[in-house]
Amino acid sequence: MLDILVLNGPNLNLLGTREPGVYGAKTLADIEADLIARAGDRARLRFLQSNHEGDLVTALQESGRDGVAVIFNAGAYTHTSIALRDAIAGSKAKVIEVHLSNVHAREDFRHHSYLSPVARGVIVGFGPMSYDLALEALIAGA
Amino acid sequence: MLDILVLNGPNLNLLGTREPGVYGAKTLADIEADLIARAGDRARLRFLQSNHEGDLVTALQESGRDGVAVIFNAGAYTHTSIALRDAIAGSKAKVIEVHLSNVHAREDFRHHSYLSPVARGVIVGFGPMSYDLALEALIAGA
Amino acid sequence: MLDILVLNGPNLNLLGTREPGVYGAKTLADIEADLIARAGDRARLRFLQSNHEGDLVTALQESGRDGVAVIFNAGAYTHTSIALRDAIAGSKAKVIEVHLSNVHAREDFRHHSYLSPVARGVIVGFGPMSYDLALEALIAGA
Amino acid sequence: MLDILVLNGPNLNLLGTREPGVYGAKTLADIEADLIARAGDRARLRFLQSNHEGDLVTALQESGRDGVAVIFNAGAYTHTSIALRDAIAGSKAKVIEVHLSNVHAREDFRHHSYLSPVARGVIVGFGPMSYDLALEALIAGA
Amino acid sequence: MLDILVLNGPNLNLLGTREPGVYGAKTLADIEADLIARAGDRARLRFLQSNHEGDLVTALQESGRDGVAVIFNAGAYTHTSIALRDAIAGSKAKVIEVHLSNVHAREDFRHHSYLSPVARGVIVGFGPMSYDLALEALIAGA
Amino acid sequence: MLDILVLNGPNLNLLGTREPGVYGAKTLADIEADLIARAGDRARLRFLQSNHEGDLVTALQESGRDGVAVIFNAGAYTHTSIALRDAIAGSKAKVIEVHLSNVHAREDFRHHSYLSPVARGVIVGFGPMSYDLALEALIAGA
Amino acid sequence: MLDILVLNGPNLNLLGTREPGVYGAKTLADIEADLIARAGDRARLRFLQSNHEGDLVTALQESGRDGVAVIFNAGAYTHTSIALRDAIAGSKAKVIEVHLSNVHAREDFRHHSYLSPVARGVIVGFGPMSYDLALEALIAGA
Amino acid sequence: MLDILVLNGPNLNLLGTREPGVYGAKTLADIEADLIARAGDRARLRFLQSNHEGDLVTALQESGRDGVAVIFNAGAYTHTSIALRDAIAGSKAKVIEVHLSNVHAREDFRHHSYLSPVARGVIVGFGPMSYDLALEALIAGA
Amino acid sequence: MLDILVLNGPNLNLLGTREPGVYGAKTLADIEADLIARAGDRARLRFLQSNHEGDLVTALQESGRDGVAVIFNAGAYTHTSIALRDAIAGSKAKVIEVHLSNVHAREDFRHHSYLSPVARGVIVGFGPMSYDLALEALIAGA
Amino acid sequence: MLDILVLNGPNLNLLGTREPGVYGAKTLADIEADLIARAGDRARLRFLQSNHEGDLVTALQESGRDGVAVIFNAGAYTHTSIALRDAIAGSKAKVIEVHLSNVHAREDFRHHSYLSPVARGVIVGFGPMSYDLALEALIAGA
Amino acid sequence: MLDILVLNGPNLNLLGTREPGVYGAKTLADIEADLIARAGDRARLRFLQSNHEGDLVTALQESGRDGVAVIFNAGAYTHTSIALRDAIAGSKAKVIEVHLSNVHAREDFRHHSYLSPVARGVIVGFGPMSYDLALEALIAGA
Amino acid sequence: MLDILVLNGPNLNLLGTREPGVYGAKTLADIEADLIARAGDRARLRFLQSNHEGDLVTALQESGRDGVAVIFNAGAYTHTSIALRDAIAGSKAKVIEVHLSNVHAREDFRHHSYLSPVARGVIVGFGPMSYDLALEALIAGA
Repeated sequence: MLDILVLNGPNLNLLGTREPGVYGAKTLADIEADLIARAGDRARLRFLQSNHEGDLVTALQESGRDGVAVIFNAGAYTHTSIALRDAIAGSKAKVIEVHLSNVHAREDFRHHSYLSPVARGVIVGFGPMSYDLALEALIAGA
Repeated sequence: MLDILVLNGPNLNLLGTREPGVYGAKTLADIEADLIARAGDRARLRFLQSNHEGDLVTALQESGRDGVAVIFNAGAYTHTSIALRDAIAGSKAKVIEVHLSNVHAREDFRHHSYLSPVARGVIVGFGPMSYDLALEALIAGA
Repeated sequence: MLDILVLNGPNLNLLGTREPGVYGAKTLADIEADLIARAGDRARLRFLQSNHEGDLVTALQESGRDGVAVIFNAGAYTHTSIALRDAIAGSKAKVIEVHLSNVHAREDFRHHSYLSPVARGVIVGFGPMSYDLALEALIAGA
Repeated sequence: MLDILVLNGPNLNLLGTREPGVYGAKTLADIEADLIARAGDRARLRFLQSNHEGDLVTALQESGRDGVAVIFNAGAYTHTSIALRDAIAGSKAKVIEVHLSNVHAREDFRHHSYLSPVARGVIVGFGPMSYDLALEALIAGA
Repeated sequence: MLDILVLNGPNLNLLGTREPGVYGAKTLADIEADLIARAGDRARLRFLQSNHEGDLVTALQESGRDGVAVIFNAGAYTHTSIALRDAIAGSKAKVIEVHLSNVHAREDFRHHSYLSPVARGVIVGFGPMSYDLALEALIAGA
Repeated sequence: MLDILVLNGPNLNLLGTREPGVYGAKTLADIEADLIARAGDRARLRFLQSNHEGDLVTALQESGRDGVAVIFNAGAYTHTSIALRDAIAGSKAKVIEVHLSNVHAREDFRHHSYLSPVARGVIVGFGPMSYDLALEALIAGA
Repeated sequence: MLDILVLNGPNLNLLGTREPGVYGAKTLADIEADLIARAGDRARLRFLQSNHEGDLVTALQESGRDGVAVIFNAGAYTHTSIALRDAIAGSKAKVIEVHLSNVHAREDFRHHSYLSPVARGVIVGFGPMSYDLALEALIAGA
Repeated sequence: MLDILVLNGPNLNLLGTREPGVYGAKTLADIEADLIARAGDRARLRFLQSNHEGDLVTALQESGRDGVAVIFNAGAYTHTSIALRDAIAGSKAKVIEVHLSNVHAREDFRHHSYLSPVARGVIVGFGPMSYDLALEALIAGA
Repeated sequence: MLDILVLNGPNLNLLGTREPGVYGAKTLADIEADLIARAGDRARLRFLQSNHEGDLVTALQESGRDGVAVIFNAGAYTHTSIALRDAIAGSKAKVIEVHLSNVHAREDFRHHSYLSPVARGVIVGFGPMSYDLALEALIAGA
Repeated sequence: MLDILVLNGPNLNLLGTREPGVYGAKTLADIEADLIARAGDRARLRFLQSNHEGDLVTALQESGRDGVAVIFNAGAYTHTSIALRDAIAGSKAKVIEVHLSNVHAREDFRHHSYLSPVARGVIVGFGPMSYDLALEALIAGA
Repeated sequence: MLDILVLNGPNLNLLGTREPGVYGAKTLADIEADLIARAGDRARLRFLQSNHEGDLVTALQESGRDGVAVIFNAGAYTHTSIALRDAIAGSKAKVIEVHLSNVHAREDFRHHSYLSPVARGVIVGFGPMSYDLALEALIAGA
Repeated sequence: MLDILVLNGPNLNLLGTREPGVYGAKTLADIEADLIARAGDRARLRFLQSNHEGDLVTALQESGRDGVAVIFNAGAYTHTSIALRDAIAGSKAKVIEVHLSNVHAREDFRHHSYLSPVARGVIVGFGPMSYDLALEALIAGA
């Protein structure tokens, strides 16, 4: 059975309250519940959200070591963290990068991702459905 | 019933023969057949591939006019065509941008997309599965 | 009697429906009819719109060969096409560059025109009146 | 009856003597006389030329306050003055930006205008006819 | 009664010992004591210093949730942290950005702040008085 | 008794009428009256507004010579004038730079100030309160 | 016997009339006749000129498929077309890039070629002799 | 007796497993054991590895305060952390920057170090021997 | 007899008091007196200093018209004024650009001069002797 | 009879041993012998290789003076030497620039040539055949 | 026994007299004597200093050919010479790059090294000890 | 008696023949003879021209050591040589940088000088008179 970590970075704990016009009205708990329902017995999900870059680095390292695939929304660290990139590349974690909003339609500094070149794939701009698609991709063997 | 145009840009007719290490061994016809099978009666699919930017512009315009959603792999025009961007924005076509390869892991000039800011969502790097995910997204109401 | 080609590039066939907040409510046919009325017997007008860069190149070449002046709204190709620039410079076509919207008040990539340096003059931001002014300029001997 | 200020910036008092190959042989007085003749009783024209950025700022402010439209050739200040831009935007003066020469065919630093994004329209490269076209545009209700 | 968090980022715990020529001789405790004295019963102050970006993100989130205004010296994270910017924008915390030194007179990489565009106001270069001014601004209703 | 010049640059005479959404509804005269009231007998205030860069240069020179502190809102010249920077540095005038609006949340060309590196301090984005804070800073010995 | 396609891009049909100072007085037909004479029975030549990027893409694809070597002057598309680059790389067509004029002595935007990195070799600036040298190179086994 | 902290940043706990082609087969524990053996009684070594930027900042601060020299491999934070730079400069910690791999032979974003300008010296590309050389340098009085 | 205008821009009236470490202890009056003495009856000198860009423009125009050569220290306007450049080029004034300090050893924004390309020659960094050398050059027929 | 200097720059004496994957297995002596054989009595060849930029400058000067054409592979100096460019332009030497490898497929800093704009023509990427083609071009009158 | 060339570039013959604040008081002869003493019978040292880039190229070529390792301080050529880089890469010389001063704490143009990507390792900023460390590294088998 | 070296860099031996439109008709020997005549017994002149950067470095070093002032036209090395800059700064040679042509009116790459920041002064664009002025400056004690 497939093990998947749904890993969320800084400020994603604000979902549902943070700029709903940009990020939607669902809370992170809502999204997580929906994902569990969708996964059914096709995958075993774990969830982690942290505002600390270091925690995310550690989580990626452990996922790589344990063969856990990762659905990763790194939030703002997407654009600034080489440490997260190295954690993916170095641990050989299988990571799908997701974003709720269309980062390419926002400020310039959100257009570049340090993570994309080492991700298995990238899904951007579908709101909570971004996580659903990533889940389906992993289950389908991405 | 949902109408979807699967629109492919320059050189995607070479799929299966063109740099298989980068793009995989499936031909475009294979991908199209798989998509029809996957869609079943959930969506009506049409297919168009052209090496001409102008043809793609026209196809997007018509899709916008007719309420046809588009799964669009613009190939190299992704990075150079403002005309395609305008066709999407101007016709209000609902477009999901897809790429087979992880463009962010390739040359610098493939990292920027003129289309992403006006796309409904972007799916990158899953090989032929990129089209599958886009199809599921549209069926799910993206 | 002065021969003038009114040449329009990609997506200008959408006029009247495309982003009316940006481009106004008149269709291209409306604009063309107005121009004929304005020209009266002062000039003989022909019209061509194409989404194909190559068609526009050819039209400019023929205009240069036949001594036909051109009112040219190249749309998005304004910002990306060196081929159109070469067609103007190479054929010595007399070309007035026009834009409906104020391109300088929009995205950065619309601020640069490959055509302006080889155009006889440039008229920007007056809506359909941009064409009128270009027509008057040509009739006045620009 | 329409009130229009024809406002000219630094060095335009040299017209007719300054680089005639670039700017033509007409003096500024010639241009002004031609404009009066063209306007007839369709518009009341006033003229101001100054080498001082501050004078131009003040003239734009007063035009905005008094509902006077402006045909503005800011000369070199086009490329360096944010103060003039603010005067247009802040006073809501209706301004048409004109240039005698084709600034896009000259040095790089003449390709950018701080004024264009807040101008009603821009007319470039027609020699003295640039002023004529601007006058016609204002009379036609631009 | 106004609740204010005085939030300090990395290395500000070194104040008084760190490069006194740049940052002055007062310790952070000195500054905090002075602020309490100045606030009197006009505001209730809390203090937090952390070298961890994640802690600062969390503190901003909580301030936004609880309606606590923030006087924020993000130190070096000012120039590198999009996560802090998102925490301010996402939580709608009312934040005044302060700096002890004149960052604009130092290295180039200190000239840009990710936080300023989402701050209520910015106060730079007054030494410990920067905090005093921010306090007065908040009390005065900024 | 402290002598202070409140020096305002181009277009600040439009305050109250110019883009009130950006700059607020108070006129410059209102702000000046409020500052006099606030200063009481703690400082002697003089006021100067000019649209001329040269006038501002001269005023700074005289302030430096006479030991008059300056609260300076240079408006658009903030971003373009090295002459004003030199006037501050050369005359050793004590200058606090203020801005009504949050310049960092506006166009890119407003993000850089030639004056900040030679100012005693910088206060940005508090509306008319920016002047109040600068006044308090000077009275407190900044 | 060696099969070679001599492929010319936009505006090269103007040769002999287009800017003879830059491109020389020979027409494209002249050049083609000269090449046939030079080739003799050492190679079988075919010729194609198009102003359409898409036509050139298709021609390159077919050449790659059929083992036809290509002497390619892409004209202005040299500097803007990633699609042509992909057609060369994707079809593994053996392509020699040629230019009549010395592109490095002209405008900056002509200094970069998207095609050179995937070409077998590049020959620049010899006028019609550029084609001759490319022909000799192919015959010699380049 | 000399006190030295061997401080390692994010992902260096993966050594031996992380991209051995780039970083070698030794684990961090191996390197630490080798360093203790090499130091003998010439220096007292302590070791700290953290994925948290804040922890590294604190460790540098304490080293500066206690007069402990530092051999510092900041990993990915080398390229993104101004906070670490400030911790070195602010605490006056004596720091030698080391890297296992030749960062200059890798991606562009690894070519710039925020730390080098404030380091006592920099040693790059010798694999684990980089630490040995740093140790010898400190013992020799660097 | 040769007529020469010694024209000085903003803040040069501060000479002798302004940053003597950079600009020396001589006042502008001292320099002017020295120049008169040096010129003797070899040239007739006039002097003008202004903080207003517009005044300098006008002075250059008049010099061009009257055949007066100019020794010009434009101070800060050197780096920001296209209007001064146009005044030189447009009026065909014979201008020698001088600077007291070595502008190339100072801030980056002082390294570029809009005036140099249209000046007869440039003399930088000799202190007041820069004026002397310019005078000798003009007398010698530069 | 045509006199030709085959001039080679730094490290080309390593040919055959230096990175054969990039530069091929032929030594420079092999190439020179092949060129003599090819030239027969159609041209008189001389050869010079130097690692010294100054020697190459001098050789170009002498060639220009003596009417000797030059086949020039400047190696690394291609990308860094303005002195060589000046030697070509200043001496009016007729120079064909050649490169063995496809410099456009290598590091970015090899994409720019200071020499190309002043060369008669440029031949890139054919291995030793690049010299052959240059020889034929000169004999044919390039 | 290990053969090592200690190779020094331009101006390093000035050591001891050249900017001692930057480079220290030891002469190059002092450093060489110290290195011989340190090497003892562990390595045979040769020394070469030249102000000529070409000499350094040749010395690197010969070292590569003869299996001599190199301790190389290229001085200013570090930042400008692709020829030296090619000499290292082409000859496969084993080279350790050293610098006396901390180049990263100096002017921007000293931050980039053409040599580092092809060096075995890089040692920066330890004064003469940089050579010592390089020697130890080579003896230890770097 | 003042000792002066007149030092000329690459291609200046071509003077009189090299691009006389740019550099004038005088040979270097003519210029040297004129300088000797001008110097009379006010200074003892020596002359050196070399196409080798290394020779120029050495000459500057010796001048610094012997207290010889230098009039230096580095030609193309002005724009590319950090070694020459270091030779001036390192040897504390008193150097006046001269250029015959107005380098600022030529190609962009001639606008930057590595030497200017460490030169005593810079004289540009006076033709051979540039040397005369430098000579007078040195005699006058620059």
